[in-house]
Amino acid sequence: MLDIFREIKEEINHVEKGLRMVVEDSDPLIKDTSVHLISAGGKRLRPAFSFLGGKFYNYDYKKILPLAVSLELIHMASLVHDDVVDSSLTRRNIPTVKAMWGNKISTHLGDYLFGKSLKLIAGYENFFIARVLADTSVRMSEGEVHQLFSANRPDQGIRDYFYRIKRKTALLIAASCQLGAVACGAPESIHLPLRRYGHSIGMAFQITDDILDLVADADQLGKPIGSDLRQGIVTLPLIHALRHSPQRDRLNEILAAGEKSPGEIEEACGIIVSGGGIEYSNRIVERYIDNAKRQLDRLPDVPARQTLSTVAEFISIRKF
Amino acid sequence: MLDIFREIKEEINHVEKGLRMVVEDSDPLIKDTSVHLISAGGKRLRPAFSFLGGKFYNYDYKKILPLAVSLELIHMASLVHDDVVDSSLTRRNIPTVKAMWGNKISTHLGDYLFGKSLKLIAGYENFFIARVLADTSVRMSEGEVHQLFSANRPDQGIRDYFYRIKRKTALLIAASCQLGAVACGAPESIHLPLRRYGHSIGMAFQITDDILDLVADADQLGKPIGSDLRQGIVTLPLIHALRHSPQRDRLNEILAAGEKSPGEIEEACGIIVSGGGIEYSNRIVERYIDNAKRQLDRLPDVPARQTLSTVAEFISIRKF
Repeated sequence: MLDIFREIKEEINHVEKGLRMVVEDSDPLIKDTSVHLISAGGKRLRPAFSFLGGKFYNYDYKKILPLAVSLELIHMASLVHDDVVDSSLTRRNIPTVKAMWGNKISTHLGDYLFGKSLKLIAGYENFFIARVLADTSVRMSEGEVHQLFSANRPDQGIRDYFYRIKRKTALLIAASCQLGAVACGAPESIHLPLRRYGHSIGMAFQITDDILDLVADADQLGKPIGSDLRQGIVTLPLIHALRHSPQRDRLNEILAAGEKSPGEIEEACGIIVSGGGIEYSNRIVERYIDNAKRQLDRLPDVPARQTLSTVAEFISIRKF
Repeated sequence: MLDIFREIKEEINHVEKGLRMVVEDSDPLIKDTSVHLISAGGKRLRPAFSFLGGKFYNYDYKKILPLAVSLELIHMASLVHDDVVDSSLTRRNIPTVKAMWGNKISTHLGDYLFGKSLKLIAGYENFFIARVLADTSVRMSEGEVHQLFSANRPDQGIRDYFYRIKRKTALLIAASCQLGAVACGAPESIHLPLRRYGHSIGMAFQITDDILDLVADADQLGKPIGSDLRQGIVTLPLIHALRHSPQRDRLNEILAAGEKSPGEIEEACGIIVSGGGIEYSNRIVERYIDNAKRQLDRLPDVPARQTLSTVAEFISIRKF
């Protein structure tokens, strides 16, 4: 947990307990898998944002807790579904038991966690929460499908990229910031600026992620550099370089190839960096951070406002 | 559509239109895939049950329509997720674009359809509907995970089987019968017998499916005989034969093997049939059908009651 979230440390502990309780009544088989997932940890960013959002109006953490747990479950479900990978198109082969578990278990476990989040949300008598989260989940899937269809395609613009990262990342963070306040009964004048704040830092967060995939220290990042490129995911620095780098033809060629060698990945990373893709993307991040801070100016001056401002700063300077 | 559903033909047409409208506003990429799925058709059994359930109390098809569409979307989403198959555990290989789409698209498209169903459900001001469907979706995933973990395992009892088919099939049909009435404002004295009716015919429907997988005409069924066995799915006729057939040791041996040759599948089917697994399962089906009919006796004598009774009869005599 980020140290800037220390004012909600207790609440996050309740979320950890809540996540465990949610899967407590499950069949042992599914419980073990879920507990394993929950124990693997995570920053619990979305629950944290929901509590911080609630601080702006009649804060009562108990009103937010089911929402906070459900936000983390939605996030976990989407991560589990992202793990589904194809290694072959062959479908007529008889799968071994172990092989059958791989992708299938990811799919059904994700559905299970998502279903559990729905049960928590269905406990709220405020329809607005269910409607925002239903809409968010539809858009999250749209973003994932768009990413699949646009893989390895150089013929896409910045708008395609923004369409995807809004859905993949920003909307759930926006909903987290907004709905924590909604759960406490906040009016639009409070929860709409919070939503916009969340949207902006969500966008900034994802662009930074995409920058770090190209320039971070692989050890700190915990994965090899250029993994987006390897999967054919077209990110903002790449889009910029595809338009402005003097070596854009070569970059195009590497991208369009289905499989890419480690040497090609390295070469492509070099072209993107030297072509100014990183500086350009950093400027866009700054713009989103500025917008996030402007939204905070519209909110009451409670301590959580300073925390959210610090979070915004942190996003633009993080190195992993 | 079964001819017995002719009294709700118009309503089912509205469901077809509704399904198309739901994906109308989507990104073209996801819309094409969804429309393809919807056009592939289906019996629309769950929407049909929701309308028939509504006929028992202040019937207004408009109140049921969003629910009916959402029930079909949940069903479609679960089918799409069932399509996720593993052909290899290798995950470090770089997937080709085409291969990447396969399982991934199934996962995200299923999520998308499920999310769309939530949006429709979130439109109801009756919390009961959202709660029943959230619970149902959790249990459906539990059933799927249980099926994965129990594949190829002879050491399971009839209770494991009932646990799975209740979740895989019966609960959503039970919810369909119940919630159509709930959407029209029916009291418990109406919607609980409908739920129990749906549960019983759902169980009977799935057991019949599992029988047909062993004895149906492959052409009529549209898939090869013994496909459950091939996937290691342990069904009621098999469980019976594993306990009572004189050749149970051989059956055990075939089941426990990960991959099964066509000859072994045929041999196993033969052992199950000669061991009385089919007669036994048919008796269980009859018991569920009887129970379903007893539930109908508790309901007002409207024409839909005769339809539901005919549906119950049909389930036990269908051949494909």
